[in-house]
Amino acid sequence: MTLLETIHSPEDLRDLSNAQLQQLTEEIRATIVDTVSENGGHLASNLGAVELTLAMHLEFESPKDSFVWDVGHQVYTHKLLTGRYEQFHTLRQNGGLSGFPNPEESDHDIFAAGHSGASIAAGYGLSVAKQQKNDPSYTLAVIGDGSFTGGLVYEALNNAGHENTKLIVVLNDNEMSISPNVGSLAMYLAGIRTNPAYYGFKEEVRNTLQKLPYVGDAAVQAIVTIKKEVKDRLYSSNVFEDMGFNYMGPIDGHDLRALRYAFQSCKFIDGPVLLHVMTKKGKGYVFAEQDPSRFHGIGSFNKVTGESPKGGTNFSNEFGKALCTFADQDENIVAITAAMALGTGLKEFSERFPDRFFDVGIAEEFAVTFAGGMAKGGLIPVFAVYSTFLQRAYDEIVHDVAMQDQKVVLAVDRAGFVGDDGRSHQGIFDLAFLRTIPNSVIYSPSTYKGVGQFLYRALYDEGKVIAVRYPRGQQGYIPEDFNQNTYDDFSVLGEDYYENTDLNDAKDAAAIVTFGTLFPEAAKARDLLKEQGIRVRIVKLNKVWPIAPGAVDAVLDCDKVLFFEEGAKSGGIGEAYGYDLMQRRFSGTYRYFAVDNTFVHHAKQASLRAEFDLDAAAMVRAVTEDTPHE
Amino acid sequence: MTLLETIHSPEDLRDLSNAQLQQLTEEIRATIVDTVSENGGHLASNLGAVELTLAMHLEFESPKDSFVWDVGHQVYTHKLLTGRYEQFHTLRQNGGLSGFPNPEESDHDIFAAGHSGASIAAGYGLSVAKQQKNDPSYTLAVIGDGSFTGGLVYEALNNAGHENTKLIVVLNDNEMSISPNVGSLAMYLAGIRTNPAYYGFKEEVRNTLQKLPYVGDAAVQAIVTIKKEVKDRLYSSNVFEDMGFNYMGPIDGHDLRALRYAFQSCKFIDGPVLLHVMTKKGKGYVFAEQDPSRFHGIGSFNKVTGESPKGGTNFSNEFGKALCTFADQDENIVAITAAMALGTGLKEFSERFPDRFFDVGIAEEFAVTFAGGMAKGGLIPVFAVYSTFLQRAYDEIVHDVAMQDQKVVLAVDRAGFVGDDGRSHQGIFDLAFLRTIPNSVIYSPSTYKGVGQFLYRALYDEGKVIAVRYPRGQQGYIPEDFNQNTYDDFSVLGEDYYENTDLNDAKDAAAIVTFGTLFPEAAKARDLLKEQGIRVRIVKLNKVWPIAPGAVDAVLDCDKVLFFEEGAKSGGIGEAYGYDLMQRRFSGTYRYFAVDNTFVHHAKQASLRAEFDLDAAAMVRAVTEDTPHE
Repeated sequence: MTLLETIHSPEDLRDLSNAQLQQLTEEIRATIVDTVSENGGHLASNLGAVELTLAMHLEFESPKDSFVWDVGHQVYTHKLLTGRYEQFHTLRQNGGLSGFPNPEESDHDIFAAGHSGASIAAGYGLSVAKQQKNDPSYTLAVIGDGSFTGGLVYEALNNAGHENTKLIVVLNDNEMSISPNVGSLAMYLAGIRTNPAYYGFKEEVRNTLQKLPYVGDAAVQAIVTIKKEVKDRLYSSNVFEDMGFNYMGPIDGHDLRALRYAFQSCKFIDGPVLLHVMTKKGKGYVFAEQDPSRFHGIGSFNKVTGESPKGGTNFSNEFGKALCTFADQDENIVAITAAMALGTGLKEFSERFPDRFFDVGIAEEFAVTFAGGMAKGGLIPVFAVYSTFLQRAYDEIVHDVAMQDQKVVLAVDRAGFVGDDGRSHQGIFDLAFLRTIPNSVIYSPSTYKGVGQFLYRALYDEGKVIAVRYPRGQQGYIPEDFNQNTYDDFSVLGEDYYENTDLNDAKDAAAIVTFGTLFPEAAKARDLLKEQGIRVRIVKLNKVWPIAPGAVDAVLDCDKVLFFEEGAKSGGIGEAYGYDLMQRRFSGTYRYFAVDNTFVHHAKQASLRAEFDLDAAAMVRAVTEDTPHE
Repeated sequence: MTLLETIHSPEDLRDLSNAQLQQLTEEIRATIVDTVSENGGHLASNLGAVELTLAMHLEFESPKDSFVWDVGHQVYTHKLLTGRYEQFHTLRQNGGLSGFPNPEESDHDIFAAGHSGASIAAGYGLSVAKQQKNDPSYTLAVIGDGSFTGGLVYEALNNAGHENTKLIVVLNDNEMSISPNVGSLAMYLAGIRTNPAYYGFKEEVRNTLQKLPYVGDAAVQAIVTIKKEVKDRLYSSNVFEDMGFNYMGPIDGHDLRALRYAFQSCKFIDGPVLLHVMTKKGKGYVFAEQDPSRFHGIGSFNKVTGESPKGGTNFSNEFGKALCTFADQDENIVAITAAMALGTGLKEFSERFPDRFFDVGIAEEFAVTFAGGMAKGGLIPVFAVYSTFLQRAYDEIVHDVAMQDQKVVLAVDRAGFVGDDGRSHQGIFDLAFLRTIPNSVIYSPSTYKGVGQFLYRALYDEGKVIAVRYPRGQQGYIPEDFNQNTYDDFSVLGEDYYENTDLNDAKDAAAIVTFGTLFPEAAKARDLLKEQGIRVRIVKLNKVWPIAPGAVDAVLDCDKVLFFEEGAKSGGIGEAYGYDLMQRRFSGTYRYFAVDNTFVHHAKQASLRAEFDLDAAAMVRAVTEDTPHE
């Protein structure tokens, strides 16, 4: 029996010896590597936060004290220590544990997470509520240095720094976020790390600790005193102190004793504390230590060799290749990423065109406004970004691009269901919010080739905001009668397909209108229906917004029109399509299948399509059923 | 003839003597006070930036050098010096000059503006484009200290600070933005202002300047040297230098010579510069100096006495009163503003419940995430915010409130047309983007009383994100047969109204469906139609999202349904209403009138309603015309 198996709540940690705690960290790491190598997940960041999380649970009382995990890439140890060890093998599986904090799973998870930089703002809000209600417990926001490139963090520091709530910000500094860190703050942190005065502090802490009894006010007081001395010796405050925080650090994030003392001393400081902890991404698993970017978010892999199965290409990769091709021809093309060069397929671009590549940090708002400025200067900026993260920049798209009459291309990756990452990462809102913006254009190709084609249109069409959106993963089933060479706004698949069959002269039973990832489903549905002797027409939108009039005309003679959309129903394309049908006095049945007024949990993409009635089987049902099935 | 009349472009400034320049500043101030006292506008901030703007035009060559004005509250002098003196009396009038920078007006206006904090990001983007194209000109971003409370500024500093573009950030520090500044950075700036070392620099600059010839490299070099000495004397960098900028200042922003020298010296510094300029809001107009908040954005006023005409109440005021009433009864209610306590009607609340009032600076993203955290802690947060600024927080509403299952009330002020402030301030997107969010609820009352009623529902209804939206200004015409005491989701005005008329037994010719500001228009339309002997039914939505099924059932027997919405058509409520009609197999005519795929220029609200076919006259036309008139 392992020690970890005996930990059912943080209470069970209290009586463990130092040696046992050390053993526990090793068991935790082994468990994380085992599970992530099977299920995929966030590995490197989680391995870096083992001692930090353990120290938090030892020195604070979760859930009375509230742990707020930024983004949630470091929450696995927390899950293992809060009664979820036995379910841990279900991580990221349909019906299993979420890869992110999830209040529905445990009272120890305070906020769901997934978007960067929210923890200090949310944690500060919680600490204010506690203050209002005379609750003396602590709120800890644990946040990586990468998140510090985002403005929401700064806004939160600016507000929380001058109030006296029991907020402890734990800066988990692993010297990189997903991509190596960018920007002035990264340099600034590097400066702190290498400042001999700070390192002197660290050494003194270590020496002092070794001389003192393990726990006790005296030891804590000593640290506070040392801190003051160090601060005086530096004769100037650092940027966090300028923002009103009591700065403490940097602390070795893999030294459990130092971490515990630091947390103890935090309790003796009035006002908000920023505790700067240095950790190593991938700590304890050599392959992840060597290549933390690849092991940031990763699919299943061989834990002995560290090798990932050779995947084929995917949409992100095809986007990156196409952009390089066009950039070769046109030096005005520049590319922007918000700390996602690898994920968005821009690695090759960044190497081939370093002067035209901009990693702005986790700062989607800035990315868009910056792009608007570059467009004004005559460049053609392409911002490659995950659909879910683009939500951050809604106002900037409206105000700093569309309203300026500037053309910016949004390469919207992970559009639609993303699968295992779950609720906070699903790309289900981009269509609905982008089409509210005047003169926006949205392409949603279904093929690798289409990504290049419609990216080309986006680069050189007239327009203000032009999005090309494509899903996570691989291209699906593309039927032979679909002309892959089209640059057209829409494609109708019909007549040719039924030649030389009994269905040749039959009337189409229904039209299926769809786009993107659901086109392969529609093609499969058509095949299934053909076997049943039922004809169906497919209208595939390539440009999904504005909807081409011809794409509506193409179904007016049908009795039944079925629109399938892998996105939010409210404000979705299918709603506008229905309105257009109505304006043409279409009098048949119109049904619109999409994600209706809910967030979408984690599960494989195919499984989600089935669950939301968006797969081929659901399409067949919708065509053949008489009862409304909305 | 005044001097100002002779200035048709910045070129005309070149030969003016110091005395003439001094006279010019006085003429500019007089012109601004004259015009704003007639037309309304942003007074205090514009009066503070006269010398600063003049110095910029003297030392740089606009539009070759690009001036990027943050928000645009300080752009009047720039307009007066760039060929727009003769049109200046048309400021903010329909068809006249915009109150904000507007590239359609002049090549000297690089970006349209209105939302805070975009200038450094956009200006940096432009400076990168210039660098790519080997254009040696400068880009100046002029930005107030208030904007520095927003995260977009920080993201931009973090990116621009370590690149070597010709970007000059002018921090126009007037010690307050719209409301007095909040947060740690405000305290930090106060620290710089009162730091004797910095002030010593200022004095030394003055003394040195007085000894040196007016222009010349020697003088400039001397300043750079002094700067270095001051920096060394302070033996530490400040936060802007930490972010990679060459910091210079603070400079007296009303000392034209000092400003000119400072700009000259900027040109001798490699890399980005942050020039810290101290100005006084309202400078030169005593009433504005004394009460800069009231004179920030103001309607017409008596320029001799400084008095504004006594206005009646308005929606913001009624919201504030209602919130105080509820907060008296429930200590869990807390209120948040993003630097808009006065504009959103929260002044009384802030005075009566100071511990439950949070001005977070111009940081809408933080405001929402913070509210989500407070809700988690058991409070009922109400974030009062203009519709247009709420756009900033779209992702935070999705991720940090709705996805967390937390209830936050959004009091959405300035919803719909805002009138004179124009494009960047129109509140036309909130309905479309809020309703994309799962489990969101939106109320849009038409009366003062309704604001209180539906605010009450919002405070205590189940729901995640609940918005109560109301317009700028006063309540319109409310007909007697509308029951003002209703808390219902919708109201139907019909039968009673036609009693005792010849129309009693006639069939309704059409249904007008609308809400908010357009309900008074519908009521007026009904009166006009009655005079013509035409019956019409009015369905007034109170809860506009989700649409109550009964509000759709109520028109199913009509031949013609006309939906009027003071907001964006794409994704608007009327689109969803049309979809619902279709699902009920409504077979009549449905027309949807809204703002179709465009931004909305500045003009009086009534004039915009007429222009966009949303006023009573347009409704009468839509009811009586046979031709589609969409």
